[in-house]
Amino acid sequence: MHDLVARLYPICRSITGNGVRETLRIIQEHIPVDLHEVASGTKAFDWTVPKEWNIRDAWIKNSAGERLVDFQQLNLHVVSYSSPVQRRMRLAELKDHLFTSPAHPDWVPYRTSYYDETWGFCLSKNQLKHLREDEEYDVCIDSSLEEGHLTYGELLLEGEQSEEVLISCHICHPSLANDNLSGIAVAVALAKQLGKVARRYTYRFLFIPGTIGSITWLARNESAVSRIRHGLVLTCLGDAGSITYKRSRRGNAEIDRAMAHMLKHSGEAHEVIDFFPYGYDERQFCSPGFNLPVGCFMRSRHGEFPEYHTSGDNLDFVKAEALADSLSKSKAVVDILEHNRAYLNQNAKCEPQLGKRGLYPSSANREDKRLRELALLWVLNLSDGEDSLLDIAERSNLPFAAIKEAATALAATDLLVPR
Amino acid sequence: MHDLVARLYPICRSITGNGVRETLRIIQEHIPVDLHEVASGTKAFDWTVPKEWNIRDAWIKNSAGERLVDFQQLNLHVVSYSSPVQRRMRLAELKDHLFTSPAHPDWVPYRTSYYDETWGFCLSKNQLKHLREDEEYDVCIDSSLEEGHLTYGELLLEGEQSEEVLISCHICHPSLANDNLSGIAVAVALAKQLGKVARRYTYRFLFIPGTIGSITWLARNESAVSRIRHGLVLTCLGDAGSITYKRSRRGNAEIDRAMAHMLKHSGEAHEVIDFFPYGYDERQFCSPGFNLPVGCFMRSRHGEFPEYHTSGDNLDFVKAEALADSLSKSKAVVDILEHNRAYLNQNAKCEPQLGKRGLYPSSANREDKRLRELALLWVLNLSDGEDSLLDIAERSNLPFAAIKEAATALAATDLLVPR
Amino acid sequence: MHDLVARLYPICRSITGNGVRETLRIIQEHIPVDLHEVASGTKAFDWTVPKEWNIRDAWIKNSAGERLVDFQQLNLHVVSYSSPVQRRMRLAELKDHLFTSPAHPDWVPYRTSYYDETWGFCLSKNQLKHLREDEEYDVCIDSSLEEGHLTYGELLLEGEQSEEVLISCHICHPSLANDNLSGIAVAVALAKQLGKVARRYTYRFLFIPGTIGSITWLARNESAVSRIRHGLVLTCLGDAGSITYKRSRRGNAEIDRAMAHMLKHSGEAHEVIDFFPYGYDERQFCSPGFNLPVGCFMRSRHGEFPEYHTSGDNLDFVKAEALADSLSKSKAVVDILEHNRAYLNQNAKCEPQLGKRGLYPSSANREDKRLRELALLWVLNLSDGEDSLLDIAERSNLPFAAIKEAATALAATDLLVPR
Repeated sequence: MHDLVARLYPICRSITGNGVRETLRIIQEHIPVDLHEVASGTKAFDWTVPKEWNIRDAWIKNSAGERLVDFQQLNLHVVSYSSPVQRRMRLAELKDHLFTSPAHPDWVPYRTSYYDETWGFCLSKNQLKHLREDEEYDVCIDSSLEEGHLTYGELLLEGEQSEEVLISCHICHPSLANDNLSGIAVAVALAKQLGKVARRYTYRFLFIPGTIGSITWLARNESAVSRIRHGLVLTCLGDAGSITYKRSRRGNAEIDRAMAHMLKHSGEAHEVIDFFPYGYDERQFCSPGFNLPVGCFMRSRHGEFPEYHTSGDNLDFVKAEALADSLSKSKAVVDILEHNRAYLNQNAKCEPQLGKRGLYPSSANREDKRLRELALLWVLNLSDGEDSLLDIAERSNLPFAAIKEAATALAATDLLVPR
Repeated sequence: MHDLVARLYPICRSITGNGVRETLRIIQEHIPVDLHEVASGTKAFDWTVPKEWNIRDAWIKNSAGERLVDFQQLNLHVVSYSSPVQRRMRLAELKDHLFTSPAHPDWVPYRTSYYDETWGFCLSKNQLKHLREDEEYDVCIDSSLEEGHLTYGELLLEGEQSEEVLISCHICHPSLANDNLSGIAVAVALAKQLGKVARRYTYRFLFIPGTIGSITWLARNESAVSRIRHGLVLTCLGDAGSITYKRSRRGNAEIDRAMAHMLKHSGEAHEVIDFFPYGYDERQFCSPGFNLPVGCFMRSRHGEFPEYHTSGDNLDFVKAEALADSLSKSKAVVDILEHNRAYLNQNAKCEPQLGKRGLYPSSANREDKRLRELALLWVLNLSDGEDSLLDIAERSNLPFAAIKEAATALAATDLLVPR
Repeated sequence: MHDLVARLYPICRSITGNGVRETLRIIQEHIPVDLHEVASGTKAFDWTVPKEWNIRDAWIKNSAGERLVDFQQLNLHVVSYSSPVQRRMRLAELKDHLFTSPAHPDWVPYRTSYYDETWGFCLSKNQLKHLREDEEYDVCIDSSLEEGHLTYGELLLEGEQSEEVLISCHICHPSLANDNLSGIAVAVALAKQLGKVARRYTYRFLFIPGTIGSITWLARNESAVSRIRHGLVLTCLGDAGSITYKRSRRGNAEIDRAMAHMLKHSGEAHEVIDFFPYGYDERQFCSPGFNLPVGCFMRSRHGEFPEYHTSGDNLDFVKAEALADSLSKSKAVVDILEHNRAYLNQNAKCEPQLGKRGLYPSSANREDKRLRELALLWVLNLSDGEDSLLDIAERSNLPFAAIKEAATALAATDLLVPR
């Protein structure tokens, strides 16, 4: 995953343009994602697909012809969606178009202006110090803002059931590693692995520009969203921080409970926070007209780590082990969703004899044996058709895996049948 | 408000009599309250309106003719509803009719005997010390207990809706400042201010003797109480203590939630306590046959401050700033009730574009700007017709005022309509 | 109760056999319990009544003819349900049939093998030390395992209502005092006392072998269990530990609330724990096909005190005061069940006048007077036909006894009638 992050890092992405296409083509080397192109001017609820933005080069040169600010070195230097400009001007005039991150003098901030046609450069505070009032600068942004398309990727992995699990990540950020090449890398790895196994649910992976991408997708797929049973927005999954899960607007959807259970039994520090209508594309999936059971899975919370939306969010900030842990936890929660069913105890009056069916766990480890026996008793006791395995795991405070194993063993006998 | 408290302080009030009439006439100088007279003997549910009590003078004189205990100095000296007496007696006999407050030797206790015809004097422990066993005393209570009337005041401020907010305070205590001249003063000020503004709800102010007054009013207005949507009993609102709100019997009525929200966002120490069937007139409004959503708004809890029902509850004990704060908080909660409605987001599928409608808050203060933007997003996200603005304020943990402002701004566009 | 425990202690009980019959006959000296005999081979849901086991003697003798392990000294020395054996063997061979309690070298463990035909001896680790590898031992278990009967005792105390309270205890353990002669002794004492008084509910006492006994009883009484309104399994009620109550599977049944209330107002340390499908016969009563409101009343939790299922659980381990306290608390909870009804306030609009009905409590103790007045007010305020006395006790946080007393006083006037 870290290799994929590194390969995608240099590309200049925005909410439209060739950077997105190039990113999706690299993703296609791993998973068979489809590319969708939606024309500028297309209506999507209250929004309109914007013009397509592309950029070839940009700089601020001094009179000696030296590039003091250079898009080729770091694409964050140009405000995303900057209109083309080629002028010579003094610092006094240029200053209105320069942005820094005062709190971190070495970092270049990330800035966009999608819906206000303007242009600008981002630079570190230390770079700004070298610009002089008495000098004229050559300023160039070789960009285009024209009718074109919004591009997004979509992958459908069909399962036994047509009910869907939605996995969505935004692909509109330029050289920012955690936000959100990490989310893209985890989504690609998860899709790759799910593609190889039998699936109960159908899985839909979206690689979309933030906000306008999810709005466009929802507008084009309005009638189909009712198939979505569970969903996750993946973002900021590569930093060294502990996991944060932001619940769906419903607050107690199965995905919310599955994530909370998985995190609790991970034994690791984590935080489960309530939904709020600010953040990434869960804002759209959880708008009141859709109210989909989609939560947001992240490590450090976007907006709350210092490197957020600056050049500090680079390849060093993203750790291979953190990506691996995020993937592992994604798979753990998918495992809960896949196996969370209700069963019916066929011998509901008094306990059945476990011994004569060979169900008593044999294990060298006494604690493990006891836990497995308890799991069998809990599954039998609560399989009255009301409680699902996740309900049972929650009430028994046993890990879902133990409950699932017990249900599997019992379902292999005459004692338990799926509801 | 403190001036009104000071003016009413010397008057000798009881549950009936001229002190109540005089009090209501002074209130009429501020607000157009109606006086109601209910004849002695009138039935009110399980109760009967008692005889009217009036008192002109009372004393205990020593043989030198000095008034050792003097009603003219402090009306608390006479047990309320004392029958007339004019006798000479030794201390041994008199003692059965003398009451002190042993824990506070300088304070005169307040005592009543409404339903047991007797007589008595209250005095400080230090006064009692000067009475001598070997002396005879002239004892006089120049009172009358006769067929007459129970008097109460009522003010109706009509609003757009016939649904009512009930504000009730008891007016039956003699020279006790906090309990309850403070409640009367806050009610008068609130009525005065509400009288000048447009009102959604109709407001009904009751100035009534405790217990028998509310019972009498409920008996005479039984068919009309179903119009009461919210209510507050105002009492002990002038001391320097922090606010206590006692919930209605329903426990989670809108008034209970509005008070809790207002107090929480005040940032000040406060206590919200559960209903119990003991206290002031909320006992009657919350009796099971009515079960009205009426809570009790107070500062220090009656019965739990040392000055309670003693001469220590005097004009010094009541602070102008505390009265002002109680009024301000009363108005804040009225503001919540007035503006708490549910709205419908007309663009419920995905977020609308705030920018093109000029809705993005402009503010020099970044925190304020962020809070106002969040409030807009919360109102949009939760305005599905289920949640009221108070629900949204509670879930978002934002102050009601911010949510109200956001709803007002959104309702001025095409995005939001009242449900 | 301690005398009964002491008298029953020496008897060798198991899930069937003469020890159970002898135990029940001694119980019959106190209460008129009926004996039921169910033939071996009888089906009971997933189970079959086993062969009947009886034992006369057992030993391990050394070559000098000394009994090194002697059933006559302690019946725990024989694994319950051991098949007969009479052999001479070396320690090497014997060892597979010897069981100790390594953590407590002086104690003899308790061990059973109901469903695996085998034999064995239990002994202390210190006894085992004296057996020598180079010696041959005479090993004898003079037992029989034959078609016969499972025996249990049942006592029905009819009440005004046919709805039942079930009190169940297991009688299958040999010389273990706390587990469960203590439960038997408390059940006998409770039955004796309930037998003498008027009863609202019908009480059914079961003295049954654990697991197979409750399963057999449920199978034979399947159609009748719907009469059971409340139930308790009594076990480990004689040790010096504080009370533990394990809730029924329903979690908030009336018995669960009554126990929690009683324990809370006892002012003593205690623990109320959630149901789990492991333990004593509550496992069967709370199986999903029955889901009866049956909790488990114990002091130290079975399996969690060191003496559990060893010879350390002897007559010294059980204290007369602990038994008395357990009985007293059993009676307190029965008192709640017996008197927990809903009433209707006949004067629901405003408070009634307590004074004119002589209801104001007279008490020298001011706190007691206040509590009794509060109880009257709470009963009046909440007796709207919805809330039972236990609901009122819970909401008011007053002891049930005070609420009951208030309801009794009010029901003697025109103010309150049973719903």
